[in-house]
Amino acid sequence: MRALKTKYDIFRQKAYIIIYGSNTFAGRLFDLTLLGVILLSVLLVMLESIEKLDAKHHTFIVVSEWIITIFFSIEYALRIICNKRPLKYIFSFYGIVDLISILPMYLSFFVPGSRILSVIRALRLLRLFGILNLVHFTGQESQLKLAIKASRTKIIVFIYFILVVSILLGAIMYVIEGPESGFTSIPVSIYWCIVTLTTVGYGDIAPVTTLGQIIAAFIMIMGYGIIAVPTGIVTAEFANAKRNDPDMDGKRKCPSCTTIIYNEDSRYCHHCGEKLTHG
Amino acid sequence: MRALKTKYDIFRQKAYIIIYGSNTFAGRLFDLTLLGVILLSVLLVMLESIEKLDAKHHTFIVVSEWIITIFFSIEYALRIICNKRPLKYIFSFYGIVDLISILPMYLSFFVPGSRILSVIRALRLLRLFGILNLVHFTGQESQLKLAIKASRTKIIVFIYFILVVSILLGAIMYVIEGPESGFTSIPVSIYWCIVTLTTVGYGDIAPVTTLGQIIAAFIMIMGYGIIAVPTGIVTAEFANAKRNDPDMDGKRKCPSCTTIIYNEDSRYCHHCGEKLTHG
Amino acid sequence: MRALKTKYDIFRQKAYIIIYGSNTFAGRLFDLTLLGVILLSVLLVMLESIEKLDAKHHTFIVVSEWIITIFFSIEYALRIICNKRPLKYIFSFYGIVDLISILPMYLSFFVPGSRILSVIRALRLLRLFGILNLVHFTGQESQLKLAIKASRTKIIVFIYFILVVSILLGAIMYVIEGPESGFTSIPVSIYWCIVTLTTVGYGDIAPVTTLGQIIAAFIMIMGYGIIAVPTGIVTAEFANAKRNDPDMDGKRKCPSCTTIIYNEDSRYCHHCGEKLTHG
Amino acid sequence: MRALKTKYDIFRQKAYIIIYGSNTFAGRLFDLTLLGVILLSVLLVMLESIEKLDAKHHTFIVVSEWIITIFFSIEYALRIICNKRPLKYIFSFYGIVDLISILPMYLSFFVPGSRILSVIRALRLLRLFGILNLVHFTGQESQLKLAIKASRTKIIVFIYFILVVSILLGAIMYVIEGPESGFTSIPVSIYWCIVTLTTVGYGDIAPVTTLGQIIAAFIMIMGYGIIAVPTGIVTAEFANAKRNDPDMDGKRKCPSCTTIIYNEDSRYCHHCGEKLTHG
Repeated sequence: MRALKTKYDIFRQKAYIIIYGSNTFAGRLFDLTLLGVILLSVLLVMLESIEKLDAKHHTFIVVSEWIITIFFSIEYALRIICNKRPLKYIFSFYGIVDLISILPMYLSFFVPGSRILSVIRALRLLRLFGILNLVHFTGQESQLKLAIKASRTKIIVFIYFILVVSILLGAIMYVIEGPESGFTSIPVSIYWCIVTLTTVGYGDIAPVTTLGQIIAAFIMIMGYGIIAVPTGIVTAEFANAKRNDPDMDGKRKCPSCTTIIYNEDSRYCHHCGEKLTHG
Repeated sequence: MRALKTKYDIFRQKAYIIIYGSNTFAGRLFDLTLLGVILLSVLLVMLESIEKLDAKHHTFIVVSEWIITIFFSIEYALRIICNKRPLKYIFSFYGIVDLISILPMYLSFFVPGSRILSVIRALRLLRLFGILNLVHFTGQESQLKLAIKASRTKIIVFIYFILVVSILLGAIMYVIEGPESGFTSIPVSIYWCIVTLTTVGYGDIAPVTTLGQIIAAFIMIMGYGIIAVPTGIVTAEFANAKRNDPDMDGKRKCPSCTTIIYNEDSRYCHHCGEKLTHG
Repeated sequence: MRALKTKYDIFRQKAYIIIYGSNTFAGRLFDLTLLGVILLSVLLVMLESIEKLDAKHHTFIVVSEWIITIFFSIEYALRIICNKRPLKYIFSFYGIVDLISILPMYLSFFVPGSRILSVIRALRLLRLFGILNLVHFTGQESQLKLAIKASRTKIIVFIYFILVVSILLGAIMYVIEGPESGFTSIPVSIYWCIVTLTTVGYGDIAPVTTLGQIIAAFIMIMGYGIIAVPTGIVTAEFANAKRNDPDMDGKRKCPSCTTIIYNEDSRYCHHCGEKLTHG
Repeated sequence: MRALKTKYDIFRQKAYIIIYGSNTFAGRLFDLTLLGVILLSVLLVMLESIEKLDAKHHTFIVVSEWIITIFFSIEYALRIICNKRPLKYIFSFYGIVDLISILPMYLSFFVPGSRILSVIRALRLLRLFGILNLVHFTGQESQLKLAIKASRTKIIVFIYFILVVSILLGAIMYVIEGPESGFTSIPVSIYWCIVTLTTVGYGDIAPVTTLGQIIAAFIMIMGYGIIAVPTGIVTAEFANAKRNDPDMDGKRKCPSCTTIIYNEDSRYCHHCGEKLTHG
């Protein structure tokens, strides 16, 4: 009994290294297999949504989806089993995603048509960020994250500003254009305003009256102008992050105290006074 | 008589603290209630504009709007009463907004259909900026304001330039394309030109002739290129504001001369030579 | 005879000061009048292009246009007469614009319908830059000009790149989509490609086949990405111009040698060693 | 025989200088001729695709295309003959482009309709970058290349992020909107999502339901916001490249130690203390 438990423990430990780690060959192989299966599962959901393909290959697609669902179920079970703190995994973001990406298939036994919800499986694509988590890559990513994090408050103020402006101008355009031009209600007008302000411009709704077109032109120029604001925010952060980045490409380090020498033509270390050689 | 006046004075003072202040619990509660009612009133105007909903719940919506209007009227009266300089409030931006957001409902007694003007109430959403006026937030906002203020002149020149270019190219496109392609008049052509230059591109009007399409392509590339100008202006301002910002996140200050230490690994103050401690 | 000539000379001199200068009251008044008449003339051409308005007020518009044309003709004559180097003016950019903005009206005697060419009068709007030429304004404008000038070569390379990419992808899309989807010829496909690459997206032509949509998505993301290039170019120039700008807002100057003190916490002038005071 | 070989060798050497070089007059002339012929050939393919023009001038166009094809064939043969390492050329990018730009015409003998593939000839336009390869120009180009190269990893992460987001939101929109609104399948929905996220907005597919429009508005604002990310990346790189660029426009160098003097009004070299003269 004890030997069995030990075997089970060893199995759990091995599974943990394979599933969560990526240093061993098996772990790397598992990561790549998972990557492939996730891509395949997303592809399958896509193909199924194309009516012509679904009509032709319905059985093949359904069988494949079941195979993938079972694979994901086993993976989900293993992740719970081999984790020392299974609850933490279950209620983590990835844990929830992993669960709801397999649920719709089982649900389809009871609720017909619920299989369409398996599109949520696409969320598993986010795992790829983790799988492709090379050192260099992460460095870049974290720099991105830092810049975005630092400018978060400004961006929230900015989005709030856009929303208030859109509600105001949307309401005004509703009064000016009226339902005949497609501005059937204020929410629709607000939707149109966001479409215009962000320079997307579908054209499904477009102003017809002269006054409406003048205000629309004003909104466009404003939108064109304020696109500068988020760009300015993020760029300033990037430039800042870059300036403070200690891993700058190919900078000299002081041979004595390993401080990074920012100024290329320094002749003495600014930290310890050690004389520097060029090169 | 005198006691009454004092009571009234105390009431005014209390009302002032609640309405204009946000330090007391009651003041904070009032702010949040106002926030909720403003959001609700905007939502109501939106819902009323949706024909189907209005047909179903007309009485409910009208009654709710009257309740909100009365609430706003009382708030408006209180703001005038408890303010020591009521005229200053009445003719301030917010004072006018507060007034014209309650007027349309009362007007609807005399002029039927004027209730639609209560969409102007959406302007009260701007008060949210004030209500959400946390210290940190304001810091961000004022930095935004500074950057925008500093680049104001450049942006005006820029908008003027866009308008002149649009009039010129709009007139040319009117001559080339003519009314058959939707370019029914020069103002419409100018509208089209702004739609194109700002990369919105509704497609309600689009050039059909070869020459028209060539000029349109030219306008697009130009618009694509000059989008860089406002961005460049604002970004340079942001980067500048960032560099000069003394409240940079968590910078050390010299304990002796309170100079800000920009370089994180400095061991001596670059200003007074005081030895610095890490931490 | 000699007295007459002197009178004529005085008239020419006065006219010169009024027309070309803007320091005297009369000169300023002339500038503002010209500004008004130019705006009016552009407005008239616009209104005439609106069929309904033209039908109603045809006589009024034509008479007004003739009055403006005569005003412009007199102005043109005066500009030639009072200028010491009339040929230089005649063949300058503004001289040519001034001439061709009055020609179409006179031409309409001989060639009916040529009056439409008077839209070229909109070019005179460019004079407004000159008229509004306040000192502060020009400073901003010239900084804009410098930044644009410095990044000119890069922008030309960039536009050339966009054109080559558009021709290539336009040709490919023509082969893939074919005339049925609106890609009737390669030039039209190139036009579509520019419309897409610049994120304008009219939607008058849109890919229908799967392969076409994949390539279109690729073009969009590319266009979305390379919008960064002109922005990056211009922003870097702006930031540079800003850094080198000696008229930076509110910088201290050394009381001894008037050198600008860039570093706010300097205690000695970096140029002459004079001790600086704060504030 | 030997003399002939020598003559042939001289011919090869001369041809090499003319075709590959651009220092001699003949070489320059060849480059410009090639430039003209490439532009002409692209123009011809374009014109042929316009049905009306092709119907009218079919013979003229076909004959011209044959002349150009023969010109290109001779050029291709010469490039192989005079090159000392012909295989390197044949399998180089330009070698393959040169070959496949003449193949379709010869193929059209056997496979009718294959002449349309000669649009691939547009790829030869890329050669123009080489031909216009002036020193100044290249400097600019290489700075562009450096900035793009440095930000490559970040841009790949960014594009990957856009793709994942598009798949996720595309799938969700497919479930919400359904085939009735034009969201016929998940791939089509993803295509729509990219069209929206990049602010292109054709309008061939547009959300109709309220929930769909809310999500669309959210996608637009997100797209509008994240357009800042690539811009921020590239701008930071540009600003960096600019700062580190040793060939900065007209900077002084210290006559003693050749250090670049960044500060224009320095009177002493900041490196070796040499007195500087203004210049």
